[in-house]
Amino acid sequence: MPPTALDLSMDAPALTAALIDFPSVSGTEKPLADAVESALRALPHLRVDRYGNNVVARTSLGRAERVVLAGHIDTVPIADNVPSRLDGNGVLWGCGASDMKSGVAVQLRIAATVPAPNRDLTFVFYDNEEVAADLNGLGKVADAHPDWLAGDFAVLLEPSDGEVEGGCQGTLRVLLRTTGERAHSARSWMGSNAIHAAAPILARLAAYEPRRPVIDGLEYREGLNAVRIEGGVAGNVIPDACTVAVNYRYAPDLSPEQALAHVHEVFADCGVAEFVVDDHSGAALPGLSHPAAAAFMAAVGGVARPKFGWTDVSRFSALGVPAVNYGPGDPLYAHKRDEHVAVDKIVHCERRLRAWLTS
Amino acid sequence: MPPTALDLSMDAPALTAALIDFPSVSGTEKPLADAVESALRALPHLRVDRYGNNVVARTSLGRAERVVLAGHIDTVPIADNVPSRLDGNGVLWGCGASDMKSGVAVQLRIAATVPAPNRDLTFVFYDNEEVAADLNGLGKVADAHPDWLAGDFAVLLEPSDGEVEGGCQGTLRVLLRTTGERAHSARSWMGSNAIHAAAPILARLAAYEPRRPVIDGLEYREGLNAVRIEGGVAGNVIPDACTVAVNYRYAPDLSPEQALAHVHEVFADCGVAEFVVDDHSGAALPGLSHPAAAAFMAAVGGVARPKFGWTDVSRFSALGVPAVNYGPGDPLYAHKRDEHVAVDKIVHCERRLRAWLTS
Repeated sequence: MPPTALDLSMDAPALTAALIDFPSVSGTEKPLADAVESALRALPHLRVDRYGNNVVARTSLGRAERVVLAGHIDTVPIADNVPSRLDGNGVLWGCGASDMKSGVAVQLRIAATVPAPNRDLTFVFYDNEEVAADLNGLGKVADAHPDWLAGDFAVLLEPSDGEVEGGCQGTLRVLLRTTGERAHSARSWMGSNAIHAAAPILARLAAYEPRRPVIDGLEYREGLNAVRIEGGVAGNVIPDACTVAVNYRYAPDLSPEQALAHVHEVFADCGVAEFVVDDHSGAALPGLSHPAAAAFMAAVGGVARPKFGWTDVSRFSALGVPAVNYGPGDPLYAHKRDEHVAVDKIVHCERRLRAWLTS
Repeated sequence: MPPTALDLSMDAPALTAALIDFPSVSGTEKPLADAVESALRALPHLRVDRYGNNVVARTSLGRAERVVLAGHIDTVPIADNVPSRLDGNGVLWGCGASDMKSGVAVQLRIAATVPAPNRDLTFVFYDNEEVAADLNGLGKVADAHPDWLAGDFAVLLEPSDGEVEGGCQGTLRVLLRTTGERAHSARSWMGSNAIHAAAPILARLAAYEPRRPVIDGLEYREGLNAVRIEGGVAGNVIPDACTVAVNYRYAPDLSPEQALAHVHEVFADCGVAEFVVDDHSGAALPGLSHPAAAAFMAAVGGVARPKFGWTDVSRFSALGVPAVNYGPGDPLYAHKRDEHVAVDKIVHCERRLRAWLTS
């Protein structure tokens, strides 16, 4: 019988295992959202709200600052890696171990065991992070109830291997289309080859030198890459269309508009017939100079790193809430069959957050 | 009820219409092959042999020369263009009108009405020309019964708009593969982009200057073209493989080995990781200097043109039989929904072949 309830009196590693054993692949989060909501409603110091399969719980202690701890409850599809398994070396294996049921376990533990934090707290548990951006639960809450997400600082417990990762890079995907004219390949001079017309685009990509700007003391690394190319009609036809999908990962000193303008400029003289924005999610500044972030850094220790991948910190950034990634999972094992998390990283993460919120 | 018999007493245009109305899409030629065999067996001056759905009929008059008249009986798939339709301008419409039931009708008419030709005649009707080369009926007969195809000269009644087309160009398709290393596109420096690695290949193709050699007085036109490109894993992954399919159409002064060596040389320094020959059919020399060809040219008149596309004349060439394309259909309308043939072209083609074979 599938599980239906969560016991928040377990320690964070045990709670992580229980969450792994409570499947919640994107699109099927309702039972877990129900269990999270029910467990949080049992805590008298929290006000609990729900929107779809997104659960938000808040203290209202009148503190000078409010901090948001956020995490998604969905996982990528299970790959023979449920139920969880704790090995003899203190490593917990299973779908979501890293991304990010260990982070969710830490959120739930803080919610359950820190009834009088030094800052007001908002806990956000949301669905559909691992699928298309328009389904993302955090985005839906931000649209419908932006006040639920208000705060001075946010920590997203995405896997960051126990280190603070500041901001995130933006990601822009554009489709560059070249055109030509079909003809039988035995009479190629009757047509015009759209694949050949893509030569300047690939040459420009191959020669491109990405930037490495330093922002708030963090060195970001951009990238401009073809991620797909396709063209061709048949083995004996001169192709009349070719599409190169290009992904620009850009540092948070660029706005989405500036990033788009840059890509336009890079390919300005490459004979692109059609330029289509396929996907675009802005970057987030690390915000480490914000007082709340500085206090957080001082409490958790370590040196912040830049976040190269795009994460939902960008959504907080868009709401005016500086945000960092800080979670126990190792991002290198996210989405992998051998996904795992070190138990001591979970314990350490919980301990440092507790210290920050209770000192 | 579908037709089962052919009446060779009809004139060639009417017989063309009857053949269009007798569907024979590649792979379904048996009923038509049966009807052709049956009609030819009724002619006492011909010896008829059959191999699969290929029918070969020969005179044995002890003439000094033997001429082969060949044509395929299959068509591309019907596209709402059967039954046939004769319009008020003397144009016959329908699937195979051009490619090449009009040519087959002329073959059948010559077979039925020229019992004592000045050259011994071999009529070849074969299947599966419009599909993969290894299914081609002429190739199967050439392998199993090469003696059935012996001759001094061959005329393939493929659509050539009533003009003689000499020889044919060869066609070589190679797959050029580049490789790289996968990485998340947010950390592209961890990988190596195989699509970018294809840039020199496309640059070489875009800059390529094809030859236009003159052979036997005919100017051929080569072409080297990408006909397909594909690469990419996902929208956020640096791709580790890219394939460019290149089609080289080459003039008949090159052997298949020379053509292959040329393509190797063109892309020698383009970083190709793998070079795969996907398809290769050799060229055929026009052979217009052969006495039988010269007599044919004198009889049918006009000026020979080079054949740019590959046709089965190459198979005759490989058997040591000089061959030309000469048929009533317009090749520009082959395989098209609006395929058609001018009735007077059919009549003219039959008349000229008859004159050559009876003068």
